[in-house]
Amino acid sequence: MGRLSLPPNSTLFELLYEPGLEEDRRTVLPYLLQIDAAHVLMLARQGILPRDTAAKLLAVNRDLGERLRVGESLLAAPGTHRGLYWLYEQEYIQQLGPAVGGAAHVARSRNDINATVARLRMRDEALALLGDCDALLTAMILQAKEHTETLMSFFTHFQPAQPSTLGHYLTGVLSEILRSAEWLLASFATLERSPMGAAAGAGTSFPIDREEVARLLGFPEVIENSADAVASRDYAVQFLSALSLLGTTLTRLAQDLQSWASFAYGFIDWPDDLVSTSSIMPQKRNAFVLENIRGQATRAIGALVDILAGLKNTPFTNGVEVSSEAMAPAWPAFRASRKALRLMTLLIGRMEARPERMRTFLDGAQSTMTALADLLVARHGLPFRTAHDAVGALLSRLPEGAELTAEEARSGLETAVAAAVGRAVTLDRAELEAALDPWRCLLAAGHGGGPAPESVRSQLSSLAERHRRLHEQTVSRQNGRDEARSRLAEAVALLLGRKETE
Amino acid sequence: MGRLSLPPNSTLFELLYEPGLEEDRRTVLPYLLQIDAAHVLMLARQGILPRDTAAKLLAVNRDLGERLRVGESLLAAPGTHRGLYWLYEQEYIQQLGPAVGGAAHVARSRNDINATVARLRMRDEALALLGDCDALLTAMILQAKEHTETLMSFFTHFQPAQPSTLGHYLTGVLSEILRSAEWLLASFATLERSPMGAAAGAGTSFPIDREEVARLLGFPEVIENSADAVASRDYAVQFLSALSLLGTTLTRLAQDLQSWASFAYGFIDWPDDLVSTSSIMPQKRNAFVLENIRGQATRAIGALVDILAGLKNTPFTNGVEVSSEAMAPAWPAFRASRKALRLMTLLIGRMEARPERMRTFLDGAQSTMTALADLLVARHGLPFRTAHDAVGALLSRLPEGAELTAEEARSGLETAVAAAVGRAVTLDRAELEAALDPWRCLLAAGHGGGPAPESVRSQLSSLAERHRRLHEQTVSRQNGRDEARSRLAEAVALLLGRKETE
Amino acid sequence: MGRLSLPPNSTLFELLYEPGLEEDRRTVLPYLLQIDAAHVLMLARQGILPRDTAAKLLAVNRDLGERLRVGESLLAAPGTHRGLYWLYEQEYIQQLGPAVGGAAHVARSRNDINATVARLRMRDEALALLGDCDALLTAMILQAKEHTETLMSFFTHFQPAQPSTLGHYLTGVLSEILRSAEWLLASFATLERSPMGAAAGAGTSFPIDREEVARLLGFPEVIENSADAVASRDYAVQFLSALSLLGTTLTRLAQDLQSWASFAYGFIDWPDDLVSTSSIMPQKRNAFVLENIRGQATRAIGALVDILAGLKNTPFTNGVEVSSEAMAPAWPAFRASRKALRLMTLLIGRMEARPERMRTFLDGAQSTMTALADLLVARHGLPFRTAHDAVGALLSRLPEGAELTAEEARSGLETAVAAAVGRAVTLDRAELEAALDPWRCLLAAGHGGGPAPESVRSQLSSLAERHRRLHEQTVSRQNGRDEARSRLAEAVALLLGRKETE
Amino acid sequence: MGRLSLPPNSTLFELLYEPGLEEDRRTVLPYLLQIDAAHVLMLARQGILPRDTAAKLLAVNRDLGERLRVGESLLAAPGTHRGLYWLYEQEYIQQLGPAVGGAAHVARSRNDINATVARLRMRDEALALLGDCDALLTAMILQAKEHTETLMSFFTHFQPAQPSTLGHYLTGVLSEILRSAEWLLASFATLERSPMGAAAGAGTSFPIDREEVARLLGFPEVIENSADAVASRDYAVQFLSALSLLGTTLTRLAQDLQSWASFAYGFIDWPDDLVSTSSIMPQKRNAFVLENIRGQATRAIGALVDILAGLKNTPFTNGVEVSSEAMAPAWPAFRASRKALRLMTLLIGRMEARPERMRTFLDGAQSTMTALADLLVARHGLPFRTAHDAVGALLSRLPEGAELTAEEARSGLETAVAAAVGRAVTLDRAELEAALDPWRCLLAAGHGGGPAPESVRSQLSSLAERHRRLHEQTVSRQNGRDEARSRLAEAVALLLGRKETE
Repeated sequence: MGRLSLPPNSTLFELLYEPGLEEDRRTVLPYLLQIDAAHVLMLARQGILPRDTAAKLLAVNRDLGERLRVGESLLAAPGTHRGLYWLYEQEYIQQLGPAVGGAAHVARSRNDINATVARLRMRDEALALLGDCDALLTAMILQAKEHTETLMSFFTHFQPAQPSTLGHYLTGVLSEILRSAEWLLASFATLERSPMGAAAGAGTSFPIDREEVARLLGFPEVIENSADAVASRDYAVQFLSALSLLGTTLTRLAQDLQSWASFAYGFIDWPDDLVSTSSIMPQKRNAFVLENIRGQATRAIGALVDILAGLKNTPFTNGVEVSSEAMAPAWPAFRASRKALRLMTLLIGRMEARPERMRTFLDGAQSTMTALADLLVARHGLPFRTAHDAVGALLSRLPEGAELTAEEARSGLETAVAAAVGRAVTLDRAELEAALDPWRCLLAAGHGGGPAPESVRSQLSSLAERHRRLHEQTVSRQNGRDEARSRLAEAVALLLGRKETE
Repeated sequence: MGRLSLPPNSTLFELLYEPGLEEDRRTVLPYLLQIDAAHVLMLARQGILPRDTAAKLLAVNRDLGERLRVGESLLAAPGTHRGLYWLYEQEYIQQLGPAVGGAAHVARSRNDINATVARLRMRDEALALLGDCDALLTAMILQAKEHTETLMSFFTHFQPAQPSTLGHYLTGVLSEILRSAEWLLASFATLERSPMGAAAGAGTSFPIDREEVARLLGFPEVIENSADAVASRDYAVQFLSALSLLGTTLTRLAQDLQSWASFAYGFIDWPDDLVSTSSIMPQKRNAFVLENIRGQATRAIGALVDILAGLKNTPFTNGVEVSSEAMAPAWPAFRASRKALRLMTLLIGRMEARPERMRTFLDGAQSTMTALADLLVARHGLPFRTAHDAVGALLSRLPEGAELTAEEARSGLETAVAAAVGRAVTLDRAELEAALDPWRCLLAAGHGGGPAPESVRSQLSSLAERHRRLHEQTVSRQNGRDEARSRLAEAVALLLGRKETE
Repeated sequence: MGRLSLPPNSTLFELLYEPGLEEDRRTVLPYLLQIDAAHVLMLARQGILPRDTAAKLLAVNRDLGERLRVGESLLAAPGTHRGLYWLYEQEYIQQLGPAVGGAAHVARSRNDINATVARLRMRDEALALLGDCDALLTAMILQAKEHTETLMSFFTHFQPAQPSTLGHYLTGVLSEILRSAEWLLASFATLERSPMGAAAGAGTSFPIDREEVARLLGFPEVIENSADAVASRDYAVQFLSALSLLGTTLTRLAQDLQSWASFAYGFIDWPDDLVSTSSIMPQKRNAFVLENIRGQATRAIGALVDILAGLKNTPFTNGVEVSSEAMAPAWPAFRASRKALRLMTLLIGRMEARPERMRTFLDGAQSTMTALADLLVARHGLPFRTAHDAVGALLSRLPEGAELTAEEARSGLETAVAAAVGRAVTLDRAELEAALDPWRCLLAAGHGGGPAPESVRSQLSSLAERHRRLHEQTVSRQNGRDEARSRLAEAVALLLGRKETE
Repeated sequence: MGRLSLPPNSTLFELLYEPGLEEDRRTVLPYLLQIDAAHVLMLARQGILPRDTAAKLLAVNRDLGERLRVGESLLAAPGTHRGLYWLYEQEYIQQLGPAVGGAAHVARSRNDINATVARLRMRDEALALLGDCDALLTAMILQAKEHTETLMSFFTHFQPAQPSTLGHYLTGVLSEILRSAEWLLASFATLERSPMGAAAGAGTSFPIDREEVARLLGFPEVIENSADAVASRDYAVQFLSALSLLGTTLTRLAQDLQSWASFAYGFIDWPDDLVSTSSIMPQKRNAFVLENIRGQATRAIGALVDILAGLKNTPFTNGVEVSSEAMAPAWPAFRASRKALRLMTLLIGRMEARPERMRTFLDGAQSTMTALADLLVARHGLPFRTAHDAVGALLSRLPEGAELTAEEARSGLETAVAAAVGRAVTLDRAELEAALDPWRCLLAAGHGGGPAPESVRSQLSSLAERHRRLHEQTVSRQNGRDEARSRLAEAVALLLGRKETE
C-alpha cells in the first residue's frame, strides 16, 4: 500500500486490526457512510468531483447503508487487512473500479473522518443519555411531589438531625441531577463542530465548502483551525466529567436509599421483582440493584482518568494515541452511565414508602431540639448560643434514647435558662409541645429552602419548569439530529434522481 | 460544649483542629466575616435580631476585618479548641458578652456557612484563574499573528506531514484553550448560588430573606432546596474538570514546544533567563520550565479523582467528608493550574522562533507529497487513491532521505500514472515545481482551516473576537464580585452610622 | 552560572525557586547533608579528593547538620537564587573558598543526588507509616480478642445475614490491613537501592565505590544501571498503591463503624472527647472523626493518579517532570494516610461496644434461617436447595418483621417438606429451638473461618503471629536506618579526628 | 425463588442478567465447574454428602466440562433467569432431580464461590501476563546485548547530555520492567488464598475441610477469616497497581523510541510490516504501533481508579458492588496490558538501529563537556565547580551549534583556568582530544552504572540472572496451576471410577 512493501505483521493483525473490525462495523460504519455521503455531495456541488462520479459513489453508499440497516454483515475482510477504512474504500474500488471507486478520498483524510465519526457517535450517545436523565428526573419529581408530606428525619453525619420529608430529600437530589443534565446539554456546544475539511490536519488546496458538509451532518459550526480539528478531543473530557459527576450523585442517592431500605430503617421498600434473595440465606430480600447502580455509576470516573492520562503529553495533532486509544474508554462509560440511570429510574419509580416506619424512627431521636432552642430565641429573646447550650445541658442529663416530654423540657429549661441569663423565664406548655412535635416542626420549617410541604411544592414547581426546558431542548436536539439525517438522505436522493433522470 | 462533657481528645486536637487553624485564618476567615455581616444585616432588617444587637455584632465584624487586612493574627487559640468557627463566635462573646455575642447564630448553621465559604473562596480562585487564561490567550494570539508566515512542518505521529506555520499550530492550540476558558466561565452558573438560610440542611422557621443575603454576597441566585444547599459540591467537580482539561492541553503544547526547542529540531529558543544549565554538564541549556508546566498542569487530574472518590458513596447531606475533606484537594489544584498557566504565558510571550532551522528541516522531509498527488487529481483527473499510490511507489524507489527533484517526479510519475490508468499523461514541470515547494504548498492550503497565511489570519480574527468577549465577561464578573463587597461594606456602614447617629 | 548569562527570570523565581526553598530546607536539606557526607567520605577513601579537602568539607557539613538540628534557619537566600542545591554549594564556597568549597561535586550530579534524597525521605515516611500500621493492628487485635463473644449480626447487602460477633468482623478487616502492611514491607526491596554514582545518568569516569556510599546511607543495594538510577520512581508508585489500598480498606471499616454507631443501630459508641456536637442541633453526638478518616484515607488515590499521570509519556531519564513534579504528590499523601491510620487507631482503641443493642437488633432479623435449612439437610437428609426453598416459602407467609417461633417453624416446615419431598418428616422441637437461637448458631459456626468464638480465637492467634513478625521487621528496618546514620556520623568523626590529630 | 414471589423485572433482566450471561459462560463457568468439583469431592470425603450423590453430581460436572471444552454453548437460558449460577444449579436439578441436583449447595454460597472464581480467573490472567513480561525481557536483553557498543547520546530534558549507547538505555528500562515483574510475582502471595468454606461470609456449621478444597484448586493457603474471604479484593488492587506501573514504564519507553524513530533523529527503524502509511500523505512511514502501546498501557490506570473508587465506602462484606462491579474493570485492563506487552516485544525484537545516524547526531551536540571538566579536575586538580564554569564560559563564547576543536579547547581553557585559579595550567592536546571524543568518553564511563560497554555487560549479566529466576518462578507457578487441575480431574475420576466399579 503506497510506499509500503509488506502487509501488516501478523501480530499487528491479530492484536489491532482484527479485534477492532467487528465493533467498527457496528459503531463506526454507520457514521462513515454519512460522512462519506456528505463529503461526496459537497465535492460534486463544488465541481471537484464530476457529478457522474459522485452519483456512482453515492449509489454504492446508499446501498451499503440499506444493507447495514437490515443487518447484513458488510465489508467481509480478506485474510489480512489494515482496518475498516481501507476495506471500505476497497469495496468501492471493487464495485466501481479504481477510476471511480478511488476518487472520493480527495480533500479529506482518515484523520478528519475519524474526528468526525467520534463526534457523531458521541452525539448519539449523549442524546440518548440526556433522554435517560430526563426520564429519571420525571420519576424523581413525581415521587417528590407524592411525598411532600411524608414525614422523615433529615440526617447529617448518619444521625437524625431535624424533621423533614422524603419529598424534601428527593427534591434536593434531583436539583443536583438537573444541574448536571443542564451541564451535559451545555457541552453540546463543544461537541457539535465539524472537523471535515481539515484533512490530515493541514487543510487542503481544494476549494471545498466545509459549512455545507457541516450542515448535512447536522453540526451548527465548523472547527476553524485544521490542527485543532484533528487534535482536540476536549468534548470527550467534558462529557465524561459530567458523567462522573452524575454518577457520583447517583452513588450518594443509592447509599441513602439502601440504608433506608435496610432492616434497621425500613423506610422504603420495593416489590419482589426488584429485590433478590440469597442462595444460602432464605430470609434475604436484598435491594441489590442499588449496588449495581453504584458500580455502573462509578465507571465514568475510571474512564475520565483513562482519557485524561491518555491525552497527557501527546503532541497536539492527530495520532492513534489521541484519536483512537484515548477515546476508547468513553464508549463503555456511556453504556454504564446509561445503565445506572435507567436502573435508578426504575427503582425510584417503583419505590414504596413506609411512613409509619419513618414516623416511629423519630421517637426518641430528639430531632426537634433545634426547634426548642429556636423557641427560646424567638419567644424569650435568648441569644441562640445560650439557648442551644441550655437544651444541650438538659439532654446530657437524660438517660440515653429517652424521649423528652414537654413537662421535662419546661422544668429543665426554666432552671437552665434562669441560671444562664440570670432572670426567670416562664415557658408555655403548648408552645413546648409544638416545638417537640416533629410534624409541627416540619410545618414551621418553611424558610431557607426547608422541608415544609408548601416550601417543597414551591421548590418543585420551579425545578419542574427547568426540567421542562431541559426536556424541550433535549427533544429539539434529537429532532435536529434526525432532520440532518433526512436532509442528507434527500440530498443523496436528489442527486441520484437527477442523475437517473438525466 | 452543649451536651458534650469533655474537650476534644488531644490527638484530635493535634491532627485535626490545630493544623487547620492557621490556614483557616487565611483562607476561611475573610469569607466568614463577609457571610456573618450579610447574615446579621438581613436578620436585623427582618426584625429577627434587634438593630442594636446587630450593630454591636457588626462593629466587631468590621473591626476584625480591618485587623485582618493589616495582617494581624486574629483569634488566638486557647490551649485547646474545636476549630475556627467556635473561636470566631467566642471572640464575639468575649467582646460583647453572651447576650449579644451569642446572638448571631440564628437561622444558620456551620453547614450552610461552610457551604457558602467554599463557594466564595472558589469564586475568587476561579476569577483569578480566568484572568490567567485571558493572559495566556493574549500572548498566544500575539505570537500566532506574528508567525502566520513562519513556514514550519506540520507533524503527525512525530513525523513531518505537510507544510504549515508556527502560527497555524499556535492557533490550533489556542482554539482549544479558548473553549476551555469558555467552559470555565459557563461553570459560574453552578457556583454562584447562595446556600445561606439552609442552616443545617433542613431550613429554618425564622422568616429570613435569603435573596438579600445572596445579593450582599454577590450571588445572583439562591439554592432552592436546603438539603441540596449543604450537600452539593458539584461546582467543584465542574471546575476541577475544566482545570484537568486545560492542564492536559498545556502538557500537549509543552510536549511540542520542548521537542522543537531541543537540539534535534532547534525551531524555537528562549533567552538565558528562562533556561537552566546542569550542575555537571556545562554545555546544557534546558527548557526545563516546560517540565514544571507539565507537572503542575497534571495536578488537577489527581485532585479531580480525589474529589470524585471523596464524594462517592457519601450520604446526600452535609458531612465532614463532603464539606471539608472532599473539597481540600481543590485549593492546591487551583494553585498549581495557575502556576502552569502563568509559566506558559511567560514562555509563549518570550519564545524566539528560528525560521531558518524550520526551513532547513523541511529539506528531505518529503512534506509536499500530498500536493503532488493532489496535482494529479486536480490537473489530470486521476482518482486520488491512484495518485497517492503512484507517488508512494515513486518514493519507495528513492534512497532514504533523498530529496525528490521536479525532474525525477516528472519522469517517475509519468511512468507510474501511465501504468496505473493505461493512458499517457504529460506533467508540467512548473506545476511540479510548485507542488514540490513547501512555501507554495503552504499558500495553497487555504481551505478547511488550513495553514495558508490568509486562512490563519481569518481564523485568528474570529478567535480574537471570542477572546474579547471572554475578556469582557471575565472583567465583568470580577467587577460584580467587587461591587458586592462594596455593597456589603456600605450596608454595614449605613447600619452602624444610623446606630451611631441615633 | 556556567554558560548562562542571566539570572532566572523573576517570574520563575517567584513561582518556582522561592516557594520551594522553605520546604526544601526542612525536607531535603537533612538528606542532602547525609548524602554529601557519604559521598565526600568515599571520594577521600578512593583518593579522588585529598583527605585534607574532604576534612574541610565534612567539618562544614557536620556544623551545618548541628545547626539544622537545633532549628537554625540555614542557607539564607540572596535576592535571587536557583534553588537549594546551588545555595548549599555556595555556602561551602563562601566558607572555604572555591578551591575547597567547589571540590565536592565530582562524580555526582544533582540528578543522582535528587534521586537519592527522594529515596531517603520516603524511607523515613514509610517506616513511620509502618509504625502506624503496627499500632492500628495492635489496637484491632486487642478489640477483636475482647469481642470474640460479643454476638452481633453479620451483614450482606446492608441486611442482617447470620449471627456473628464484633470480634469476627474486626478479625476480617485486620486480616486485610495486615496483608497491606506486609505489602508495604515488601516494597522496601524496590526503595532501598542507592542511585549515587549515576551522576547525571551516564555514570562517571572517576573510580568511585558505589557500594561504600550505599552502605553509609543504609541501602543494601546499588542501582546497577545509571539511567535507571535517575529515571525510575517505581518505588513511589508501589508505596502509593499500598497506601491507596490501605486507605480504601479504612473507608470500608469507617463506613461500617459509622453505621453501627448511628442512632438506628447503636451497636458502638465513643466517649465525649471523640465525638462532636452541632452548632445548631443540641442533641447531636456525631462520630465525625470517621468522616475525616474516610477523607484522609482517600487522598492517596488522587496522589497515585497524579504520579502515574505525571510519569506517563515522559522520557526514561532524569527530568524535572519525573524527579520533582511527579514525586510532589507523594508527600502529602503519606501525611494524610498517617493521619487516617492514627485516627483510626484512636477510635478502635476507645470504641465501646453495646452488646445489648446488638442482641436486640437480632430479634425479628431472621438471621438464623440458614441454620434452619442446614438442620433439614444435616438431620433429615434434604437437599439444601429444597430445604432453602421450604424455609423461604415459610417466611413469605409470615407478617413482615415477625419473629418465627419454634412451633411455627415445626408445623410450617413439616408441611412444606412433606410437599417437597413426598414423605413425612418429624422435626425435633429442641433442635429447632437451637437452630433459631442466634447464640447457639454462633457457637456452631466454627468451620470455614466462621465466627464461633473458638474459631476466631484460632484465627487471631495465627494473625497475631504474623503481626509479631511484621512488628519485628519494622523495628529491624528502623534500627537498620538508625545504625546507618550512626555509622555515617562515626565515619565523619573518624576522618575529622584523624585529621585533627595529624 | 425462595421467598420471592416474582421473577426479576424485565428491565433488570435486560440490563443486568442477560448481558452478563454470555460472558459468564466463557469466563466464569470453567472456574465454577472446578470449584464445584473440588467442593463436592470434599463434601463426600467428609461424609457430608453421600458418595453416591457426589458421584452423580460429579458425573454431570465432568460431562459439562467436556462439552464446554469442545465449544458447546451450555446452560441455555429460559425466557428469564437470574444469572449463571442459578442456571447452573438448575441444570443439575433437571438432569438428576431435586434430591440429588439440589444437594451440592451445602456449606457454600454464591459469595465464597464468586470470590474463588475471581481468584482463579485472575491467576490465569496474571500467569499469562507474567509470561508476556518474560518474553519482553528476553527481547530487551537480547537487543541490549547487541548494542552495548552502539554509541548514542544519553539525553536529559530532551537535550543531548553525555555519550552512551543504545544498549545502556535499554538496560536501564529493562531493569525497571524486571522489578515490576518481580512485584507481580510477589503479589501471588495475596492472590492464591482460597475463600471456599466462608459460605455467605459467616462460615458454616458443617465439618468441612477447607485445606482439601484449596489443595484441589492449587491454592497454597486458605483465607482464615470468612468475612475477609468474601469481602477482600486487595489482590486485584495489587495486580492493577503493578499493571499501571508497568504500563507507565512502557509509555516512557515508547516515547523515547518514537522520538528516535522520527525523521528528526532517525536512530532506529522498523521493517515495512510494522509501520503504517497515511491515507493522504504518500511519503509517510509512521511507527504508529508505539501509539497503540501507549494507549493500551495506560488503560490499567483508569481501571485501577475504577476499582479503588468502586471499593471506597463499601461495607466490609460481600456485596454486588464489591464482588462484581468493582472487579469488572480488571479484566479488560489485563487484556490491554497484555496487548501492550506483546506489541512492545514485537517492536523491540525487530527494531533496527542506525549507528551512523546516532554518531552524526553527536557532532556539534557538545556531549563531552563533562569529560572536559573532569579532565581539569583529574589531571590538574581543579575543583569541579571551577572546571565546570570554565568550560561553560568557553562554550558561551562559541557560535551556536559549533563544534569545539581540541585547539580551541586548549587555548580557551588555559586562559579561563588561569583567570580562575590564579596559576598557569598547561593542557595536553592528546588528553583534550580524548576528552572531546565521544567514543573514548564512553569507554571511560565505566563507573556508577555507566555506559562503558564492559560496565553494561556486567549489568546485563546480573540482570539476566534475575530474569532467569523470574522465568523459572513463572514457569513453576504455571506448572503448579496445571498440576492442580490434573489432581482435581484425577480425584474426580477416582471417585467416579470407584463408584462405577462398586
